[in-house]
Formats: sequence, structure tokens, C-alpha cells
Amino acid sequence: MSDLTRLSLRKLRRLMVSGEVRPEEVTAAFLARAEARNDRDLSYVSIGAEGAHSRACLVEQAGASGRLAGIPFSCKDVFDTVSLPTTAGSRAMHDYRPIRDAQALERLKAAGAILLGKNNLHEFCYGITGANPTFGTPANPHDRRRLAGGSSSGSAVAVANRTAMFAIGTDTGGSVRVPGSLCGLVGFKPTRGQISLKGVVPFCWSLDHAGILTRSCGDAAEVFLAIREADEAVLAANADHSERGNSLHGLRIGVPRGGYLENVASDIALRVHQLIAECRRLGAQIVDVVMPDATHVRTASLAVQLVEAFAWHRTNLQRRFDLYGEDVREGLLQGQFILAEHYVQALRLIAAKQAEVSERLKDIDVLMTPTTPIVAPALDQKQVSLAGVAVPVGNALSHFTCLFNLTGHPALTVPIGRDGDGLPIGLQLIGAHHRDMKLLATGAALERVGLAGWIEPKDEMDDGPGMQPPLSERRELYAH
Amino acid sequence: MSDLTRLSLRKLRRLMVSGEVRPEEVTAAFLARAEARNDRDLSYVSIGAEGAHSRACLVEQAGASGRLAGIPFSCKDVFDTVSLPTTAGSRAMHDYRPIRDAQALERLKAAGAILLGKNNLHEFCYGITGANPTFGTPANPHDRRRLAGGSSSGSAVAVANRTAMFAIGTDTGGSVRVPGSLCGLVGFKPTRGQISLKGVVPFCWSLDHAGILTRSCGDAAEVFLAIREADEAVLAANADHSERGNSLHGLRIGVPRGGYLENVASDIALRVHQLIAECRRLGAQIVDVVMPDATHVRTASLAVQLVEAFAWHRTNLQRRFDLYGEDVREGLLQGQFILAEHYVQALRLIAAKQAEVSERLKDIDVLMTPTTPIVAPALDQKQVSLAGVAVPVGNALSHFTCLFNLTGHPALTVPIGRDGDGLPIGLQLIGAHHRDMKLLATGAALERVGLAGWIEPKDEMDDGPGMQPPLSERRELYAH
Repeated sequence: MSDLTRLSLRKLRRLMVSGEVRPEEVTAAFLARAEARNDRDLSYVSIGAEGAHSRACLVEQAGASGRLAGIPFSCKDVFDTVSLPTTAGSRAMHDYRPIRDAQALERLKAAGAILLGKNNLHEFCYGITGANPTFGTPANPHDRRRLAGGSSSGSAVAVANRTAMFAIGTDTGGSVRVPGSLCGLVGFKPTRGQISLKGVVPFCWSLDHAGILTRSCGDAAEVFLAIREADEAVLAANADHSERGNSLHGLRIGVPRGGYLENVASDIALRVHQLIAECRRLGAQIVDVVMPDATHVRTASLAVQLVEAFAWHRTNLQRRFDLYGEDVREGLLQGQFILAEHYVQALRLIAAKQAEVSERLKDIDVLMTPTTPIVAPALDQKQVSLAGVAVPVGNALSHFTCLFNLTGHPALTVPIGRDGDGLPIGLQLIGAHHRDMKLLATGAALERVGLAGWIEPKDEMDDGPGMQPPLSERRELYAH
Repeated sequence: MSDLTRLSLRKLRRLMVSGEVRPEEVTAAFLARAEARNDRDLSYVSIGAEGAHSRACLVEQAGASGRLAGIPFSCKDVFDTVSLPTTAGSRAMHDYRPIRDAQALERLKAAGAILLGKNNLHEFCYGITGANPTFGTPANPHDRRRLAGGSSSGSAVAVANRTAMFAIGTDTGGSVRVPGSLCGLVGFKPTRGQISLKGVVPFCWSLDHAGILTRSCGDAAEVFLAIREADEAVLAANADHSERGNSLHGLRIGVPRGGYLENVASDIALRVHQLIAECRRLGAQIVDVVMPDATHVRTASLAVQLVEAFAWHRTNLQRRFDLYGEDVREGLLQGQFILAEHYVQALRLIAAKQAEVSERLKDIDVLMTPTTPIVAPALDQKQVSLAGVAVPVGNALSHFTCLFNLTGHPALTVPIGRDGDGLPIGLQLIGAHHRDMKLLATGAALERVGLAGWIEPKDEMDDGPGMQPPLSERRELYAH
């Protein structure tokens, strides 16, 4: 077998079921890559090699049954685990010892998946760049001078560098979709509640979603089926029964009307325009959609985030102020000054937006936007220029994604090509509540007709040292 | 037929179905009582005689089919109606014109019930005494120098005085159960969400419930079946299949351990103790329950109420400050100073209490407490003494009820006798989520064995004028 880490999830499963490949071999292949690359790509906060090997052994003995039996994966380090530390990317959590695994991990374990380790992230998920003063900022696999995006930064890097077959992360404003897009991957945030957040360190529970990072929509569908909370009846009622082969006939794609591509980098706008034209040529129906007024969406999102995050962190902030990163700390402290009236009004605005977006999704199969208005920014970039206006990098990156955390709709990024510098471009697809499988089927259709697909990074293993201190040295910092 | 207004709901239905009594006669009988008594008991803000007569006529023509066909009822004046004003008990709503009926009213209409009019209430539901500076404070039917309780004051008085067969109200801290208890009635707050609040002027949407006032649990069950949101499957899964006849064998009654009766008026404590002993004698199993720590329950409840009410009223308060009653206005304004963090912490405490109470209800059928620690206080009473400590009347009245608005559990008051002054005493029964029908069946069992039952007020029609200006004169005030 040449390189097991390049196969699709289903192919890998077939090989293990037929006995051509042993689960233990698969785990070893991914672990070897992870251990070789981690000091450079900073994607894992901790690797549990011993635990992974013994799980693989058990799965093998059990006959590799289970939907994900023998598939190695990683998770953002906010999912509770008993066997590995749970840091949430922060020194402030150094003595946190969960007594049971997060529910989502329990589901994956029951399906036979093998946890390799826990991924680096933006400290406490509190940002979309992936910046982390303790464990380092994971670099983009396509250009190590650039950001991988966050907050599920390490999870995206692990999947992009094939040090995990899939990863689970969390997405409060775009934290799965944005790094997915910047790293050339599929990033899927299912309908709110479809992946349990029980046993996950929260950022902001009104907007938090768990999500999945993979190299293809087919892989994401397999993981979703193993992890989802929906029962069979709901799943069956919302399944996609269309058979399209190599056409997109009958697919109704909503495209926001007006100047929504005006503030987008020109290579991205061009690629999205081309893709829309291709979809039409392949039989899809393109529908103009008047999007809800978004004037106060970011403010509402921010109000809810600041308040809920502060409420959760207050005690810890008092006790161990100095263990928080400075940026995160300064952000969190703002939450203490917000009045309840404003929080409540934000929640009311959110409820209204949810109804409005649901209304728009009634007559179409998916809504389509770029995932981000820019490609991966430089590691130290603070602002970007959108149509001549300087905007903080974080606001730019979450520009198209954050609305759907407010509304709870399932949203997916699929890679649709590279810009002039070879950096990945992502397309965001949004579906109606609970039509998760249909959304993934639409993404898969785009892959099938060649309009979307994994963008493989150049392997930089031989390109000299990383840009930042290796993670093995940083662990000292953590054990302060 | 002697007095149609004395019959049970099922009996009245049977007479109409068999044709022995015409819907029009029934409506006329209740309307005649309502119109004769309203200037004295102040229970209706508006009576829609013409509309009621024509609905009765239509129901009659349609063959009196439908679960509540021909049954006259009233609703608290927070339920939107197109045909009658919706005042929420306040002059500040004088120009409010809803464009459709509240969803709960639509359900009752579909079942054939006849709306007679809209009941007086504590202004904007903002209090549990029933005080209303505009429309007057409805007096207790058992003693007109005393409070009927609120905020669904007029609804309870209408059912007690047989000017409506049943009434629907709202309950945010006890506003159906407390007036039900003080007036000798059954007051039922189903599981949160089981009666739609769509088209109801809110007090505080996190704690608001709609509820039902009747003279018996059997009547309440008929109304609940017509109005409830649960589908058949949920209802069937939670039905009560026990057949007990005149015994209570097999019923597991939880009684809070410790001094929960210490701060209760002695006549009430005595009656509840007697009742528990009787239940045991009739075969029920009495289970000691350690109740969740209630230290911050009232504070959390208040924080949520103040914030949500202020958020809803803010614009109106700015525009028409003077049209609000002084007490309500002063209360509402407190909401503007509460921080979002505190609101969020209150919601978290509420979620914890919900889980704790659900846990307690796992091994018992119902939890049992007094509904109120005191009987109906005097109209002008501001404080009461509980075990020697002076407590505001409102806090005392909602002492046992408000927890179950936080937790969303179904809760029921049934009348269990009178104190030494002849004033009604209520017993509160609490059930597990969605076991609404089982809870009503337990109440009905207590009625069947003679431990509970409607307490009929002495009819005061010939006792001279009312204590307050008649409502017909007050209407002038409203049309300022």
C-alpha cells in the first residue's frame, strides 16, 4: 500500500473491512506523520500515541466493525478527555481535569474512530486568526508565512497535512469554516445542536456549534452520520433523494442579490462568478436572493459573545488573570460592562434573523456565498483592505460566516480553487435547518462535477525549520 | 333546567350534544350572570355579548360538535383579540390593535368554545396581588374585603362567580395558581410551551406560561386537551393508565423534607398534614423529598423578570411614562440597571434548578406543597407575618409557586378546604415535564376521594354595593 493517509475515508474503511489493511497500520501511518510534523506545524497540543495504538488494537480485535472503525482523527482541545489534558489553548486551564469524555467523542469512540490527539486553537476559541501565545500560531500548510485561520486552527492544519483523517472543532462565528477555507478543506458546521456540546469548554453557548473538518464532503457525511444527534426519522425525512450523476439539473442555488461580491478580493469574486456560471451550464437554477438586513448582526453577535464568555470566565479571570493571553483577557473584560437589556435585545434580533434566513431558504436548496472575502492573511497581519476600507482581519474573515451561527443553519465550506498566489479559495453553502445531509450531498455534487475538491498543500518537510519555536519547547511554558 | 352554570363541563357538553340544552341558552345564562355582577366583582375589562351570541348560534348550527362546542369562557386581557380591545390591564396600551387572535384562542375557537369577554388583571401581569389602578382590583368572591390574587385576578373571579365556565390566564411566578388557590378553584399551569403564548402580551418570556382556571380537574383536562400543543403521540406516551377507583393505591407522593411547613399559616399547615395522612390511609405512598437549595431562586427569577420586562416596555415607557401605573412603572425601571452577566448567571441557575427538580420527580408521581403559605390577604395589606418575620405580600403569595416557572414543570392547585375564617386553602401538585394529563388525573383522584373540590363562594349579589367604584365608571378613565 503506497500512502494510506491519501485515501478517502470510505476507501480506507473498505480496505480495513476486507482485511487488506490493519487498523493498527492506519493509525501508525497517521501518527508517524503527526509526530514528524508537529514541531513545525504546531497543530497538536498533545498526541496520545499509546492510547491510539491500544484503541486500534481493540478495534482490530472487534473485527473493525462500526461506521468509523479504525479511522484516526483529532479534536480541537476544547473537547473534554480523561486520557489527555484539556487546555482550551490556555495556561489558565492548566489544572482542569474533566472526569469524562465529551459526548461527541463518546459517539466517535462507539463508532470505532481512533483519537490521535488534541489540536491547537485560538486561546479559548476567542478569535478567528488562530493566534495562540502559549502553543504558537499554526501556520497555513499552503504558505507558512500565513495564518491557517481559527479558532479551530490546529484541526484544519492536521487534516490538511494528513496527520488526521478528520478533525472535529467548534464554530461560533466561522471557526470551523474559516480555517477549512483558508487551508483548502471541507469544513462543515451542522444545524445547531446536531453535534453535542456536552463536555466542551464553551465560548458562547447561544452561538457555539461543533463542526467537522475533512478533505471531502463524502468523508464529512460519514463522520456526521456517526456523530449526529438527530434520530433516524429526522435524518430520513431530510435526506437527499435526487440522482444527478454529472449534471446539477434541478438544483436551486440562491445567490445574494446586490453588491455582496464588491468587497471581496478580486480573485475570489472571479472564481465565484465562474463557478456560478458553470453551475448554471450544468443545469442548476440560479435564484437571486434578497438577504436580510445585516446592519446589526455583528453587533448582536459580539454582545452575546462578550456577555456569555465573560459570565463563564469571570471566576477564573479573578483568580488567574496573568495566565490569560493579553488579547483574550482584554476582550473578555469588555463583557462586564454590557447591560442585560442589550443582551436581551441582541437575542431578539437573532431570533428575527433566524426566521428571515429560514424564509429565504424555503424555495431554494442552498444559499451560496464566498466563505471568506480574503485568502489566508500574513501571520502578523492586523488589518486588511476591503474595497479600499481598512478592516480588522478577524472581522474580514468572519464576514460571510457569522450570520449562520446566529441563525443555527447548517453551513459548509468547500474548496473551489486557488488565487494567483496559489492560496485556497472556499465557497460557503448554507442549507435549511436539519437538511444537513442534503447540504453535504450538494457539496459532493460540486466535487463530482469537478467544481470543488481538496487543495493539497506542498509538503514543506524539507524546507528548513519552522517560523516559530517548536511545540515541544513550548510545553514547558504551559507547565508554568 | 335549574342553573346551567353549576354543571360540570362534560355534563354541559352532553346536554348540548343530546339537544336537551341549546348552546345559545348556555351562553345567555353565563352572560346574564357576568353582566349582572361585573360592576361589583370587576372581573371583566370587556364583555363581548354580541360576538358570543353569534358564535353560540354558529356552533348550534354546526351541530355542537367539537370538544368544547358551546362552552363559554373568558381570557385574561393579555391574549390578543381582534373583536375586543386588548389592554393588558394598562392605559399604556390604549391604542394597541392586534391584527389576529392569539393562537390559544384560535385553538379554543376551533374546538367550539365561546369567548364571553376579557378579564381584569394586575397591570401588565406585573404583580401577584391583582392590584389595578385603572380597572380596579377584583375582590375575592369569598370575602370582598380581601384580594382575589393575581395577576390573573379577573379570570379566577369569573370562574369562581360562574360568569365563565373556564378561563385562561398566564402564570409567570404563580399568576394562575395563586388566584386559583385564593378563590377556591383549580388552577393549572401546564408544562412550559404546552399552551401557545403566540399573540400574548409578554411579561417575561423565559418564565411565562399560559394556564387554565376551572372548578374541577376534569374540566381542566377537557380544556387542556383542546388547547395543548403536544401531539397525540406525546400525550399518549404520558397518559395515566392507573385505575384507582376510590383508593389512592400505588400513587407515589413526594413531600418536601424539613421545615417547609414551618412558615405556613397554621390552618394551612394543619390541613396539609391531615391531607397527607388521609392520602397514606387511602393507599398512597408518601416519599420524603430533599428539595433543591432555593437560596437564589427568587433573585434569579426577579433578575430575569426585570430584564425581559424592561426590554419589552422600554419604548413604551419613554413615550407614555404617565400612562403606566406608578407601582408597575417603578418596578419596570429597575430592569435598566441590571448587567448582562447577572442575567446570564440567572439563566444558568435556572437551568441547574430545572435539572435538579426533574431529578427529584423521577421516582415519584407528584410533588405536593401548599399553593400559598397564607390565605387571601386584605385588599390593602402590604406585608404579612410568616413565623414572625414580616414579608411583602407578593413574596409570600408566590413562595411555593415561582420555582416551577423557572423549571417549566406542570403544576396544579386544587382546593382542599377552608381556614377558620372560611377562606379557601389550595394544595399544589407538581409533575414531571409533559406528564400534564397524569398530573390532572392525580388532582381528579383527590377530588374523587373527597380530599379536594371546588369551594363555592357565598353569592354576595344582595349584600349592598361593592367596595370599589363600578367598572362601568372606570372605563371612562381608560378612554383618557
